[in-house]
Amino acid sequence: MAKQPLVAVIGAGFGGLKLVQGLAKAPVRVLLVDRHNYHLFQPLLYQVATAALSPADIAYPIRRIFRSQKNVQVVLGEVTKVDLAQSTFGSERATMKYDYVVLACGSTHSYFGHEEWKDIATGLKTVDDATTIRRRVLLAFEGAEYEADAEARKAKLTFVVVGGGPTGVEMAGALREIAAKDIPKDCRSIDTTMARIILVQGSDRLLPTFPPELSARAQRDLEAMGVQVRLNARVTNVDADGIWIGEERLFAANVLWAAGVQAPAVMKSLGVPTDRSGRVIVNANLSIPGHPNAFVIGDAAAVTDAKTGQPVPGLAPAAMQMGKFVAKIIAAETRDPAAAPPRPGFHFVDKGTMATIGTRRAVADIRGFRFAGFFAWTLWSLIHLTFLVSFRNKLWVLLNWVYQYITNGREARLITGEVKLNVKTVRTEDSPATAADTSLDVSHSP
Amino acid sequence: MAKQPLVAVIGAGFGGLKLVQGLAKAPVRVLLVDRHNYHLFQPLLYQVATAALSPADIAYPIRRIFRSQKNVQVVLGEVTKVDLAQSTFGSERATMKYDYVVLACGSTHSYFGHEEWKDIATGLKTVDDATTIRRRVLLAFEGAEYEADAEARKAKLTFVVVGGGPTGVEMAGALREIAAKDIPKDCRSIDTTMARIILVQGSDRLLPTFPPELSARAQRDLEAMGVQVRLNARVTNVDADGIWIGEERLFAANVLWAAGVQAPAVMKSLGVPTDRSGRVIVNANLSIPGHPNAFVIGDAAAVTDAKTGQPVPGLAPAAMQMGKFVAKIIAAETRDPAAAPPRPGFHFVDKGTMATIGTRRAVADIRGFRFAGFFAWTLWSLIHLTFLVSFRNKLWVLLNWVYQYITNGREARLITGEVKLNVKTVRTEDSPATAADTSLDVSHSP
Repeated sequence: MAKQPLVAVIGAGFGGLKLVQGLAKAPVRVLLVDRHNYHLFQPLLYQVATAALSPADIAYPIRRIFRSQKNVQVVLGEVTKVDLAQSTFGSERATMKYDYVVLACGSTHSYFGHEEWKDIATGLKTVDDATTIRRRVLLAFEGAEYEADAEARKAKLTFVVVGGGPTGVEMAGALREIAAKDIPKDCRSIDTTMARIILVQGSDRLLPTFPPELSARAQRDLEAMGVQVRLNARVTNVDADGIWIGEERLFAANVLWAAGVQAPAVMKSLGVPTDRSGRVIVNANLSIPGHPNAFVIGDAAAVTDAKTGQPVPGLAPAAMQMGKFVAKIIAAETRDPAAAPPRPGFHFVDKGTMATIGTRRAVADIRGFRFAGFFAWTLWSLIHLTFLVSFRNKLWVLLNWVYQYITNGREARLITGEVKLNVKTVRTEDSPATAADTSLDVSHSP
Repeated sequence: MAKQPLVAVIGAGFGGLKLVQGLAKAPVRVLLVDRHNYHLFQPLLYQVATAALSPADIAYPIRRIFRSQKNVQVVLGEVTKVDLAQSTFGSERATMKYDYVVLACGSTHSYFGHEEWKDIATGLKTVDDATTIRRRVLLAFEGAEYEADAEARKAKLTFVVVGGGPTGVEMAGALREIAAKDIPKDCRSIDTTMARIILVQGSDRLLPTFPPELSARAQRDLEAMGVQVRLNARVTNVDADGIWIGEERLFAANVLWAAGVQAPAVMKSLGVPTDRSGRVIVNANLSIPGHPNAFVIGDAAAVTDAKTGQPVPGLAPAAMQMGKFVAKIIAAETRDPAAAPPRPGFHFVDKGTMATIGTRRAVADIRGFRFAGFFAWTLWSLIHLTFLVSFRNKLWVLLNWVYQYITNGREARLITGEVKLNVKTVRTEDSPATAADTSLDVSHSP
């Protein structure tokens, strides 16, 4: 018997996972490659960054997911090159032949050509990003406790979130809740409720993919919580002291990046037409023009909906539907190449979009039914629990949320990694019981 | 009114925490300095290292613990110098005056003068140590999946734990459970039950502080699980390929260090007599000879029990009792210096010692009542839950344990930080559904 065809799947995000699951009964060998050993539920990553959840609550070992699907081999590694002409993929060191390849490698943040901003303005795409943000945010409050210089203290207590999409809105709301609700009683020298959270959005409204009335509601809710929303504000520079918006200087020790989308580097190696963000322009059946055995799904694909003629949005549900769609095509063609039906065109069934703003506040647009507030927040919570990958993660996230709802506190407030406070002038006031008359060396390696 | 006396407490471990809590009603200002922003429940750290628990399950923000004790200021920082003659403490940059100082800074591992072993043989003292060990252990299994070279694969699947005290015994047992129970079904190319776990102990029995019969029982249990126990085996060298025990070479890609105890560097700055491990030899009342306002508690103190004449062991319960003991002295002396009773001598009330070997297996010595097995394991679990610091941590650890007991699986199996597999020769066998014919570049930065 000949070897079964090899399907190489690059990326174990929402799209890759659904695709591989869809191939469970197909006569193929599947090689699923990811840079990490876990599938990450990115929509809740901001809760790890803001100390509400632990990484293990929203990430699940890929091997474990496919434990009983025997036609899958999980590979931990990074694919740097896909050669469409040769039907090979791999790294620069070596390559491997595929029968089908599916690129499901998601997207990264775009710094608009300023990669040097990356080290200052951490994005939120990986678990390590989230723990880095968590460390920086918590260290900012720690540092502010000892900072005697008023300007430096103000900068430490200024948090700028760049990007007013769902991630930016959720981050800004969560930061405000930390500063206003969770930390105040724990600090002795500073009033953390004075912390400024500034959400900077380039266009004229938040959540631009939502209906305008929900954008307005999200902004009202954020402002009611104490977040400053800056619309039509383009960040023109980022440095160690803060950001520039045109001629305006904004001093901030904490800049978080939730703006821009670009396809990962491997997409460039394909040598096929892409859009401005580097997404591959694919056929209606999601294959790459001229390469019927190569597909792109999820954020990395630029595709026009076969039914509506609109571009398919870069959302988790779209990626999942694309994964299922391509799995069906591959399954049919490998089962009986002669009898396989012609490939259909992809149509995205939009069940709705939601974003949470804070505890008990969210906005939702479900098939044109638009609402906000407590009910939207409850629905948001339920839907996210549903889409979490394992029973264990569902249970743990639920328990954490219930506990936080009852106790009103974030308890995953651990500073891990290198501790560095960068205090300019150590505080010498506010006795009794303060770090008075001291300048302890408050920086060290882990 | 004059300022209240300042009590500087260095270290928020078991001893430091109890001490500060004991000063809640004393007329003092307390400055509690720790290198981390959380109190860590070290006895369960091995469960973080072995992917059973998340860091936030066993660590709790210090500020949160003392949220309502208003006479405490929590400082995140590292004390590098204590000047007993001047009654000052601080870093090399600056210093601060104290009225009392309590050194509660615990201990670190001793590499017997070979600090260069540290980078290879990770110790287990901090959260970052635990996530490093977790990463290395999980990457060893990942790497073994792709390793074609038989010797290199064997080395990847060899785990050496150096040190047969409670931490070493617990680590070895947990590693064996990962290899034999949790991982096997997730791997396609290797049989992880073949992984060798070798526990290397310098003396003639495991758990040397326990009664000999329990040492024997622990060894029997570990061996029944499949752990190789090497007694009277002194590690003479550690390098990238493994360890040397005298003339014997043991190839192992994973060396974990749970041996030796030494006091942290700050203790050396005191310029007072210490024992061989750097612990300060203190008076019966735990003060440093000649410096009645300076105390050492916990692992960093070498003290003879005032009642039994025996050295007090370096255990968490001893540290906690010392904390309470010194708090009483300071409270009495600051309330009314004239009326304070003469300082008593410290006596350690030994309520027992326990160590767990694996699920459903432990050994216990409770006031001379010695037992092992399921009952000891249940008791071990209950006692550890009791001593966890916050209700949240107790609840989360309990939930994790119950869940693992039911499902028989560790789910915090996340590889975070830098991914580096160090595969020597990439496997080209074992098709179908393997990383056949490939040598993917499987190393990358986070």
